Parts: sequence; C-alpha cells; structure tokens
Amino acid sequence: MGIVLGDDQYGKAETRVVRIYRDTARHEIRDLNVSTALRGDFAAAYLTGDQAKVLPTDTQKNTCFAYAKERGVGDIEDYALALANHFTDDIGSVRRARVDVDEYRWERVAVDGAGHAHTFVRAGHEIRSAAAVIDTGGSVKAQWVVSGVRDLVVLKSTGSQFTGFLRDRYTTLPDAGDRILATSLTAQWRYAGTEVAWGEAFAQVRQILLERFAVVYSRALQQTLWEMGSAVLAARDDIAEIRLSAPNKHHFLVDLSPFGLDNPGEVFHADDRPYGMIQCAVLREGGPAAGPAWEAPASFA
Amino acid sequence: MGIVLGDDQYGKAETRVVRIYRDTARHEIRDLNVSTALRGDFAAAYLTGDQAKVLPTDTQKNTCFAYAKERGVGDIEDYALALANHFTDDIGSVRRARVDVDEYRWERVAVDGAGHAHTFVRAGHEIRSAAAVIDTGGSVKAQWVVSGVRDLVVLKSTGSQFTGFLRDRYTTLPDAGDRILATSLTAQWRYAGTEVAWGEAFAQVRQILLERFAVVYSRALQQTLWEMGSAVLAARDDIAEIRLSAPNKHHFLVDLSPFGLDNPGEVFHADDRPYGMIQCAVLREGGPAAGPAWEAPASFA
Amino acid sequence: MGIVLGDDQYGKAETRVVRIYRDTARHEIRDLNVSTALRGDFAAAYLTGDQAKVLPTDTQKNTCFAYAKERGVGDIEDYALALANHFTDDIGSVRRARVDVDEYRWERVAVDGAGHAHTFVRAGHEIRSAAAVIDTGGSVKAQWVVSGVRDLVVLKSTGSQFTGFLRDRYTTLPDAGDRILATSLTAQWRYAGTEVAWGEAFAQVRQILLERFAVVYSRALQQTLWEMGSAVLAARDDIAEIRLSAPNKHHFLVDLSPFGLDNPGEVFHADDRPYGMIQCAVLREGGPAAGPAWEAPASFA
Amino acid sequence: MGIVLGDDQYGKAETRVVRIYRDTARHEIRDLNVSTALRGDFAAAYLTGDQAKVLPTDTQKNTCFAYAKERGVGDIEDYALALANHFTDDIGSVRRARVDVDEYRWERVAVDGAGHAHTFVRAGHEIRSAAAVIDTGGSVKAQWVVSGVRDLVVLKSTGSQFTGFLRDRYTTLPDAGDRILATSLTAQWRYAGTEVAWGEAFAQVRQILLERFAVVYSRALQQTLWEMGSAVLAARDDIAEIRLSAPNKHHFLVDLSPFGLDNPGEVFHADDRPYGMIQCAVLREGGPAAGPAWEAPASFA
Repeated sequence: MGIVLGDDQYGKAETRVVRIYRDTARHEIRDLNVSTALRGDFAAAYLTGDQAKVLPTDTQKNTCFAYAKERGVGDIEDYALALANHFTDDIGSVRRARVDVDEYRWERVAVDGAGHAHTFVRAGHEIRSAAAVIDTGGSVKAQWVVSGVRDLVVLKSTGSQFTGFLRDRYTTLPDAGDRILATSLTAQWRYAGTEVAWGEAFAQVRQILLERFAVVYSRALQQTLWEMGSAVLAARDDIAEIRLSAPNKHHFLVDLSPFGLDNPGEVFHADDRPYGMIQCAVLREGGPAAGPAWEAPASFA
Repeated sequence: MGIVLGDDQYGKAETRVVRIYRDTARHEIRDLNVSTALRGDFAAAYLTGDQAKVLPTDTQKNTCFAYAKERGVGDIEDYALALANHFTDDIGSVRRARVDVDEYRWERVAVDGAGHAHTFVRAGHEIRSAAAVIDTGGSVKAQWVVSGVRDLVVLKSTGSQFTGFLRDRYTTLPDAGDRILATSLTAQWRYAGTEVAWGEAFAQVRQILLERFAVVYSRALQQTLWEMGSAVLAARDDIAEIRLSAPNKHHFLVDLSPFGLDNPGEVFHADDRPYGMIQCAVLREGGPAAGPAWEAPASFA
Repeated sequence: MGIVLGDDQYGKAETRVVRIYRDTARHEIRDLNVSTALRGDFAAAYLTGDQAKVLPTDTQKNTCFAYAKERGVGDIEDYALALANHFTDDIGSVRRARVDVDEYRWERVAVDGAGHAHTFVRAGHEIRSAAAVIDTGGSVKAQWVVSGVRDLVVLKSTGSQFTGFLRDRYTTLPDAGDRILATSLTAQWRYAGTEVAWGEAFAQVRQILLERFAVVYSRALQQTLWEMGSAVLAARDDIAEIRLSAPNKHHFLVDLSPFGLDNPGEVFHADDRPYGMIQCAVLREGGPAAGPAWEAPASFA
Repeated sequence: MGIVLGDDQYGKAETRVVRIYRDTARHEIRDLNVSTALRGDFAAAYLTGDQAKVLPTDTQKNTCFAYAKERGVGDIEDYALALANHFTDDIGSVRRARVDVDEYRWERVAVDGAGHAHTFVRAGHEIRSAAAVIDTGGSVKAQWVVSGVRDLVVLKSTGSQFTGFLRDRYTTLPDAGDRILATSLTAQWRYAGTEVAWGEAFAQVRQILLERFAVVYSRALQQTLWEMGSAVLAARDDIAEIRLSAPNKHHFLVDLSPFGLDNPGEVFHADDRPYGMIQCAVLREGGPAAGPAWEAPASFA
C-alpha cells in the first residue's frame, strides 16, 4: 500500500496589521491579527521540493499590509473576503483560501469629556474575529464567512442551578440550587451569504448573546448555550449556524464555617483547572452547507 | 425553517493528574493533563435543561483520578483507552468518548552519578500526547488512538534553502540559498489498531522525525515535513496516518554592514510574529478511515 | 567568614477571591487576586526546619477568604490594609506584612438598556492594583499604600516624534518626525498616608495619566512619562511618589513602495520584541520615605 | 514642595540574538534573550524632551547583535560584561549599565547514535541567566555579575513533611507527615568578582542545588532553600550571595475513599493557584556589598 500526501495547507499566521485612517484630524484605528492559509496545487513542494507554484508566506504577509492600504480595512469580514478573493483569483495554483482576522478594540481617550482625535486606549477584554473561506474547486466559486467573538467573559451571581444529573459510582457532586455561572465564551456564527452589514450584525449578535445569558434562568450551561444560540438564529435569517464553546469557569463556595462564619453565596474561590468544557452548534434546517467553513484556522490546526 | 441542535460535546478539560508509583523505594512518576469529551443522548440538557442523562464533568474528573489508582497509568494511550471505554461502556447515554492526555516528562536527579530514588527534575521542552476516541454508534464499537508530540523545537543552522518560488506583484523575498530552518513541531499519528507497544512506538517515531529533519537537505519546510511523515509510515505498518503542523520560526540574518562587519550566516534575529504555518497529512493508501479521530480535543475546539 | 541567612519572606500568592454582595437583588461583584508576604522571626524555619512560629501559607489563604466576609471588600486598598494589619497585630512572629491585590473589573450586562441585577461582563483590558505594607519593627508602626494600574494600553497615532538623539557607531535609526507612540503602561503611586478616598483617587489618577498622554506632544516616551507623573503629583498632595514603567510598543511603518503604494503614516506592523523599556519615578521633595513600599510583590520577586 | 525626577532607567528589552558558530562543519549555537538598561545623565530627556544625550534603544539593540559578531558569545556572563562595559566606557552620558541575558539550551539531534553537526533540539525546561551591572559613578568603576537558573522544576515524592507549625483562628491545615514537595526554582547568585570560569561554575551550582534538594529531608521548603543556598556558598568562595525564590507547587492528595479506594500517597491533583511563595537570601559574612546588583531587570521592574 502506498504512502501519499493527504490534506495540506500553508500560509502566514499572525501578521499584526495596524491601519490608521488620518484623512481628517480625527483619526481612526484598526488593529488586526491576520492569518492566511492556502490550499491547491502544491503537492510538488512536498514531494520534490519544487517551489514553482508556491506563493511565499512572506508575500502573503506583504499582501495583508498592501491590502490594508489598497482596499482599506472597514469591517474585518470585507477585508478577509478581499484577501481570500485575491489569493483564489490571482494566484493560479490556489484552489482554496482561508483568511482569519482578529480585531482588537480601541476607544478614544476622553479629554474634557470628549473623545480625543488621535489618542486611544485598548477597550474590552474580548476579541472580534472573522474568517473568510473561498473555494474554487467546484463548478462555482463558493464563499463562506464566519464571524465571532472570543474571550467574552461573563458571570451571573445567581439564577443558575445544576441539579438532577446522572449519578454513578464516581459521582460526589451534590446538587447546586444556586450557584455562580461563569464562562469565557467563544461564539462563531456562519452567514448564509456575503451581503451583510457586518458591523451591525456583530453588535446585534453580541447583544443577544449577553442578554440571553443574563435573563435565561440556567438549569445547565448546556441549556444556556442553546438559548443563546437559538436566539441568534431566530433574530437573523442571514445566519445559518452558530457554534458556542464555553469553559465552565468554576467558582467554588468557600467553607467559612471553621472560622465561625456563614457563607450564603458570598465568598468564592475562582479556580483555574480543571474546567468543564461545553460545546455545541445550533443550526437552521435547510440552510446552506458548512463546507470547509469550520476548518481550524492556520494558527491552531 | 426550524432551528435545531447540531453537534455537541461536553467534558472536563485539563485535570492535572499526578501518579506516584511507590511500591518500592525507587518511585516512579506520571504527570498528566487529562481532558474528557462525551457525545451521546444529551439533547435534553440543551433543549429543556433536563440533566437526567448528564454525567457531571465533576464526575469525569473524579474518574480520571480514580482510574489513575484502579487501572494505573502505564502508557498514556492505555490510560486514555481505559477511560474512553469506561464512559462508553458504563454510561448509558454516552455514544462517543474522547480522552486527551498530555504527559510531562521528568528525569531523576543525579546524585553521585546515580539517579535519585524519589527526586525528579522536569525534562525536555516537548510534551507527549495521546488521544483515544471510542464510538459505539455504529454496528460495531470503533476505536481510534492518536499519539503525538508537541512543542518539539528543532533547528538546523544550514542544509536549508528556499528558492525558485512563485513571484507576484507583492513578492519582495529574495531567494535564500542557505538559511536557518527552525520550527516548533506538532506531530500526531493515528494508529491502525490498538495493540501497540505505545512507548516504544513513541520513541521510534520521535527519533525518525528528528533524524529526517536533520539529514534531509531542505528545499522547503513542506518537503521536510513530507520526508519526516512518510518515513514514519514507512517504518511502522501500524500507523495509518500522520499529521504535521509546523510554524516556520523565522530567523532573520542581521545586516551588520553599517557597522563594518560581515555576517556570513552567524548572527540572526529570532522573530516572533508573523510566522509561516505549514500543515500536512501523510496517509497510507487503503488504511482504516479516520472517522472522528481528528476532531479537536475538548480544550481547543 | 560565616554563611548567614539574609532577607527572607514567605506567603501565599495569587489567591483568587471573588466576593458577591447580595444584600439586595442588585448584586455587586469584587474579583480579586491576592498575595501575602510576611517577614519576621522566621529564621528557625530556615536554619533548623522548626515551624513553631510559621503561620502556614494555607492559613494566609484562609484569612484572605474569611476577611472578604468579615471585613468585606470595599476598595482594595482597605482590604489590603486590613489583612496586613491582621498579620502584624495578631501573629506574634510577624514583623512586616505586605499584601498585594489585583482587581479585575466587571460591568453590568445591559438588558433593554439597563444594567442587569446579577449578570456581569469582564470590562477593560487593564488591572487595578493595590499593595499595603505594614512594618512594626521600628519605634512606631509604619504603613505604606501603593496603588496602581497595569496593562493600560494606550496609543497615539500622531503627536509624537523622536529626533536629535545621540548617535554612535551602532546607530542606524533615522529621526522620526511623526510616529505612533504606544505603550502598555504600569503606573504605581505611593500615598503619603492612609486616609484617602481610594476609589476616587484611582479614578482621578487614571484620568490624569490618560489625558496627559493624549494632550502632551511627545518628544520622547521619557518626556511623556514625566509629564504624566508630575501632573499626578501636582493634582494630589496626598501622593508622595509615582513610578511609571512603559514598554515602547514599536509600530513600524511598512514600506509599501515595492507595490507602487505610498504610506503616509497609515499602515504599520505592530512588533512584539524587542521593545524599548522606559522607567522612572517622580517624587515630591520632602515627602515621607518610601521604606519597603517598593519591594517586589510576592509573586514576582 | 517641589516635584522632581527620581530614579530612571531605559533600554531595549528582549532582543532575541541567535549566534551560529560555523567555523567548522560542526556548528555551535547560542540562543539568547538580551535586555539592556542604562542610567546616567538623562534628566533632560524627561524634563524637556531633549534627546541629545540619549542613545536610542534601537542602537542598543544593534549593539547586542554587533557584539555577538565582534566579541562573540562564549559564556553569557562575558557577553553581558562586554556590553555593559561598552555602554559605560564609550557612551559619555551613561553612568550605569545593566545587561540581562537569558540563554535557551539546545542539544544536538542524535543520528545513528552521534550528535548531528548542524541540527539541534531545544533541551530542558529551565533557562540559564546572567546579569552584569557596571557603575562608574563612584571613585572606581564597580562591577557585579549575577548568574542564575530559572524554571528549574523539581519534585520529590517523599522525604518531605510540614508539621508543628503555628496555628491561629484561621488555620485548618493538618500536619503532613509525608507529602510531595515541588517547586519551579529561581536561583540567582552574585559573584564576589568577575574572574570566574562561568560555565563550570554554573554547572556546579546547578548540581549542588539539585543534589541538596534531593538528599535533604525537608521539614519545610524554607529549610530546603537554606540547605541549598548555604551548600552553594560553602562550595564556592567566589560566590558572595545566593537568592532563592520558590513557589510551593501544591500537589494535593486526592480523596479516593468515596470510590472505595485508598490512596497512600499515590494520586495527586497538581493545583495551579494559589501557591506558597518562599524567598530568601543566603549571604557570606564580610563579602562585598550588593550595590545595585539586585535591581530588577529591565523587563520586570
């Protein structure tokens, strides 16, 4: 039986592109971490070392910078699509391109109550992300956009229980009628198309996720995730699927009774490891197929 | 069109199990990071919050600790298989279990030239990993084992070039006839079965990877990965596939000419980001199907 | 010449205390990382292994949790002072106690435009810190409080130059008439006393730091730090000293000319390493002595 | 009362210098992380923004690279001394220079049982460090060298107790007659002079630290550190002081009794936080003064 090359991809990971818009005295900033990953007619590079069809990762990096000027950086989804289209359209050996972009948020420094024209402070704990995947291997060029948010750390100090679960020989956990529920959410949603007001959509999805986390009484993190995900799909027809990954960041009630103190849900130890890990997808029936949209980005696979 | 639950899994990630063997005065140590992920009949937990079929992640953690005593920790592949078998065999609602284990290596402290009986020092930069996946959803119970090594940082100071590549409008990189090639390798190989001398196999695969990296003249990291992967499959019939993920850790030659110094491959700047990212699979034709073996582990997905 | 024990300290580092105030339905949260470090009559523990005077670090941890209930967590400066006073007053062998507290900020999740009663989202990139040091070794009990902010990432996209610097044989840097200035600021300020409205003071100092960074035209990061620090001391008589530590997070203008593009301060590469590191103290003449206030906290020394 | 500039220093942190020796076909590698920090006549840079006496941090970086060629990189202590001497001797405005160097270890890849000529694999978990401080502000030029090791992770699975400690109202910890003792040691030792065979000294000190950790029955981490430190000073007259910083990496015995299993020191949970933190200095009486040797390096202060 022969030994053959299977899937392969290559690209440049984590190019740190910062774009300043300074057309007026009131500057704007876009702060990005960009990763590209290409597939196509690259077997010779592996099998014989022949690089004739290989676009260097250094060139991919240059292209990320050049496009920040040529095309600009509006919504990161558009920037990712522009780059992915370039690689598939303009480089003959490329059959599929994936571009992942993380965006770090900044807000203006307040001076005398007003936002300063060219001074910014890093805002928020979370990261906005987008991935564009374009594949030209089929009869028609296919495109996918997945937007997301990462490191969205949320906590509710009541309104959460965990009871009535399966018990086996190794179960020691008691029912919890009222507990802290906390997670560092990763949410990624796949659009049905590419004609979307990305920024508005992002803001709406983020707000729905937060609101549902807040108002739904939680009988488990699983149920909370479902409520969050299905609410997003209910609100926006242009989203075909959302995937949620949520570590259960355990907050253990500290036993203060040895010190003569009661502790009615007031003092907790925030533990590091281990942590529960709950992951699910919520889908719209009959939506477009996911194709390669969920393939791991270049820097993680 | 309805909104439905798609794939889901849950488990306990990063349980830090340390097992000491002290049957004699000469102790042994196993230092593990264990993650479990279960799939099965868990829709109710999402849709209604009913936990009746949900084995708590806390119980999964307990099981990891208990099995370190009951079954012991020999090779991490066996430990992972034992846990995965337990979850699928003994918990009715579980259809598929995945157990990921990282092992941190220790070596004995040398005292008067001999290894001390109960004192150890952390060895090596790299991490040995194993994943066992068991699925009972089909007509027969199916099992997969993927072993691996991570953070295996290697560098060759010559014997590497990158020339003759595709050039486009954005290409500025000159040909490099002699360069440093360095990577932090992640290699994961999928076995065809589960009757393997895991420890010997790991040592052999690791050695092949290192040797091929050393002796193959590199015309690209792609070619080097292929040579490494195919050599592993050539050496061991019981391995069906290997996947390699290799960041190209760039070492840039420093221009010392402004200081009146030449620099014939002697002084380099080790850069952080961006980095090339090269990934490929090498397969044996006609081998068993991968099934869910490559699904992302619980802590990364 | 004899071999003797020099300085020593011990404590419990990074106890993760989360305190929920739930006296009304509108909960409050305090999320802390607490480190304690004690000095005193502990030589026997080192020299003979006699622990009779050693308060276990486990007890110190317990005390951090218990005090979160008994004394509560208002401003972290008060909480740190209460703990430090306890260790020096109540434990006979302790001569000096240092308590370091980091606070992670949360804000309420907005639901229908109003802050939710018990659901929070991690806010901001930065960390508020406080350290209390109490020493009873002198004729009178002495106290110091150092407050601070860490990971305050700021950037100005113009209004910064670096010109006219010293040149030697190894200098290749050209003058920069207009550049990005960015840093991840650590600022720590030492109060002259302990009767301070800590929360108000923190907010005022943070605002002054941001405003001065924004409005001062920068001829060097050094000058910017001086302007920031001296403005803080000018505004508040109760601050005796401020120390600023600022990595110069380099943003390099990308050369787009090979692609036929100009780049008038628009596209930058945000580099990781190396980085400039500028550090200074700004003092009030005649202020109280720093004593041990600036000793490294337990987790860093 | 006036507001004045206090201590200040500036430099370039974390320049990643890799030096290949390729004079013969059998290459050598030195892999360094270098930080420089200068003090001197720099007040004008802060007070007025005048850079005339400021050697740019970019120049300091260039010098690190150039010296790797001009002077070479033998022992990192010599390289640090050469750089520190250059800054104080050749730059008029510099009164004191501190150079910190971390070295990452590599070993040769074994091919057919022999070390390969130009292929290396990252070795070990720990980092060797050195700092040179030179001050010309006094009547004579003064020099200090501090060598060290960091991230030296050691564990003993028996031979450690913690009993007979002080108990107060908040103490719940029981005596431990036999426990795991584990730490990630940072040790730094200050030499009395600069004429030392650095590499041999490093190897000897590291070995003494490991051996003492192994063979001394531990009644507390404090006592173990004292035994380690005093043994180093006893063995080498040219070392004036050693400082040890040791997090107590807690390994908690898991209670397996709910599962009908005993656990006689076999299965442990390796916890992350909090951790004990034990720090001490061991000094030779009558040795030379430490001066500024222990000032925090540029990247930490």
